[in-house]
Amino acid sequence: MPKSPPFSYQKLFSRAAAEPFPAGMPPRGKYDFAVAYPDPVSLPYQGLVSALLTALAEEGRDLAIYGDIQGYRPLREYVAAKLARDRRIKVGADDIILGDGSAQPLHMVFETLVDPGDVVLAEDFVYIGTLRQLRRFRANLQPVPCDGEGMQPGPLEAVIRRAIAEGKPPKLIYTVPTYQNPQGWTMSLPRRKALVALAQKYDIPILEDDCYWDLRYEGGDVPSLYTLDGTGRVIYFSSFSKIIAPGMRMGYMTAPPQLLERCRGAKSGGSVNTFAAFAIHRYAKSGQLDPHIREINAIQRYKRDTMLQALERHFGGQATWSRPQGGLFIWVKLPPTADVAGIRDQVLADVDVGYLPGPAFATDGVSGKNYLRLCFGYNTPEEIGEGVARLAVAFRQHGVPGFGRKPARKRPTAKAAV
Amino acid sequence: MPKSPPFSYQKLFSRAAAEPFPAGMPPRGKYDFAVAYPDPVSLPYQGLVSALLTALAEEGRDLAIYGDIQGYRPLREYVAAKLARDRRIKVGADDIILGDGSAQPLHMVFETLVDPGDVVLAEDFVYIGTLRQLRRFRANLQPVPCDGEGMQPGPLEAVIRRAIAEGKPPKLIYTVPTYQNPQGWTMSLPRRKALVALAQKYDIPILEDDCYWDLRYEGGDVPSLYTLDGTGRVIYFSSFSKIIAPGMRMGYMTAPPQLLERCRGAKSGGSVNTFAAFAIHRYAKSGQLDPHIREINAIQRYKRDTMLQALERHFGGQATWSRPQGGLFIWVKLPPTADVAGIRDQVLADVDVGYLPGPAFATDGVSGKNYLRLCFGYNTPEEIGEGVARLAVAFRQHGVPGFGRKPARKRPTAKAAV
Repeated sequence: MPKSPPFSYQKLFSRAAAEPFPAGMPPRGKYDFAVAYPDPVSLPYQGLVSALLTALAEEGRDLAIYGDIQGYRPLREYVAAKLARDRRIKVGADDIILGDGSAQPLHMVFETLVDPGDVVLAEDFVYIGTLRQLRRFRANLQPVPCDGEGMQPGPLEAVIRRAIAEGKPPKLIYTVPTYQNPQGWTMSLPRRKALVALAQKYDIPILEDDCYWDLRYEGGDVPSLYTLDGTGRVIYFSSFSKIIAPGMRMGYMTAPPQLLERCRGAKSGGSVNTFAAFAIHRYAKSGQLDPHIREINAIQRYKRDTMLQALERHFGGQATWSRPQGGLFIWVKLPPTADVAGIRDQVLADVDVGYLPGPAFATDGVSGKNYLRLCFGYNTPEEIGEGVARLAVAFRQHGVPGFGRKPARKRPTAKAAV
Repeated sequence: MPKSPPFSYQKLFSRAAAEPFPAGMPPRGKYDFAVAYPDPVSLPYQGLVSALLTALAEEGRDLAIYGDIQGYRPLREYVAAKLARDRRIKVGADDIILGDGSAQPLHMVFETLVDPGDVVLAEDFVYIGTLRQLRRFRANLQPVPCDGEGMQPGPLEAVIRRAIAEGKPPKLIYTVPTYQNPQGWTMSLPRRKALVALAQKYDIPILEDDCYWDLRYEGGDVPSLYTLDGTGRVIYFSSFSKIIAPGMRMGYMTAPPQLLERCRGAKSGGSVNTFAAFAIHRYAKSGQLDPHIREINAIQRYKRDTMLQALERHFGGQATWSRPQGGLFIWVKLPPTADVAGIRDQVLADVDVGYLPGPAFATDGVSGKNYLRLCFGYNTPEEIGEGVARLAVAFRQHGVPGFGRKPARKRPTAKAAV
């Protein structure tokens, strides 16, 4: 038959089709403060492989099986026990769905609840994965002003009332209440109570993304929104990405059965990876996970302190920054006229330092040009010191306000920086 | 604060929300001919774990990284080389997206192309996962009559023309052309050419789900629809589920960039599981996969022959069945008045034998009550013989036409059955 011309899919895309998503990985710097990677040196390979071997010897045949849509049940039982012990969340294995990280459960919940144009509230600067998914479902995303204690109740109520007045009562409030990404604060207990009270008053569900909770370096625990509510309006998320490894792609959610049965229907790809679930389950169940969390918290606390000291040394003056009690982020605020969004690629090329500027986290995609998020999980303490010093040099070279007037006090070597 | 009443999500569900999906796993029989599991005894645990250890030693740090949305690149390079070698499909690693089995890529493609009410054509009895997803996206699914050579060109063109006449030109043709699930046939070369010609004539894309191709027990190879077309209208799917293990959740798709960029946007949960991808890549790349496929094909060929012989012994008479040249299924046709759908649960309870009746695969969900699919991959040859014998006994006890008149010639013991 004669050769036909190339086929075009353009006319066939559904109304719900996602916008084109870029291929490949963004360039990374040697000093990679851009993405929330955990410490790569302490990843527990040996423990995971030994755990995997144990599981394969006991039930390896079940790799031949298409597993439960909610994911490997013994791991769900472990998660239920962990939630009860750590967060006083009382649910059973049947109340939990495992997914590929927390990104897949986010997809399931947003697809189930969000029609195009629906109002969703979130922090004024919010986790990029959530932003991406909410844009993908064409939510009308409304920012809630935050300070060092989290969402502010007065402005939150004003945003809710305005949406209701416009005939669009909010469908959902999304929040990372503990060691927030990217801002680093922890929502205080009074703020949590106020948030839950407003959600109850206006009958709005909350998605509590608690994926950093385990990474506590100092400060007391604060109860989850889930337990403060107690009515099932809080959908609770967490993940093994930050306490074992992102590459294991294992997160989880719990919510009332009425929502879970819809999320099961929206789940893409069947159960979770049994190979990874085997390893995580045996590793955690045998008692290796808890000491591993203590170990990485000691490492990451030191890295946080190193970055805070480096900021003090190189960013002191007009910049201010959060001092997170846990998690992986420091949120830096520069003078209002600063713009670190436009120069980011050049800074990466010049000094090999990666960061993400405020607009990457802004609900409108443009606000916050004078903010940047620095992640301290991936690099060594020496590299953290060196990278912050290099960043200050680059900002000075680019005339960023607050860096232009005086040279850094010392030459930015690793020794001086730490 | 006073205790609020339980929260209801009912009023919040989006228009696109999936229907409730049942929890848990359906009951399984000892003689489990219901689901397309591969042989569990020959699963290559040791090879996978050794491969994983190699990968972790070389690049284990990258478990700390959020990977490429298209999945671990070295595995995509292996897939590209395999497609070129085995199927003469010439694509690069950038043209491939890895996903959780082929179920996740199915989700991505259907979400990208199918609006509610859109006409999609598929075989008259079709893979259950595809049915589920197409129903989830509210496609108007139209069956194409098939015989032992696959979709019949005359009826296919009639279905296409009717849809066009009704103002709904088909969005997509879905097919499993090789060792079709559930019918077991292989689409012949003339039929493939006719299908591609019709798709070109009426400008319709094809989704070619080729996930059983590696499981060839006899017969020559038939070119893929992808290569017969050559215009990019064929979206090609395959998977490691059947040649390594379903629990590894690793499938893949290739399509033109214009479609891939939308599918990336629809992908849920980020990259694929790096832990599993590491193991599969090193296992396959080191040359262990090809002999493993030869090994399982020898095992599964013997199981197929065992099941065919058992059918001859116990189903001979009014029943007929396919004799698949590969894959995992035998499609059994009973007299038109037989109904093996309504008695399935009772048969499972009575004789511990699982099967799936025709309506499970029917586009209308009710046709084909006198058909059943038997999978021969999971049980031992002895169990296969025993299970088929037990099934015949149960069908006779239930008065299924073709089984009622005479007792089985011998007592259905394992020895007799094989």
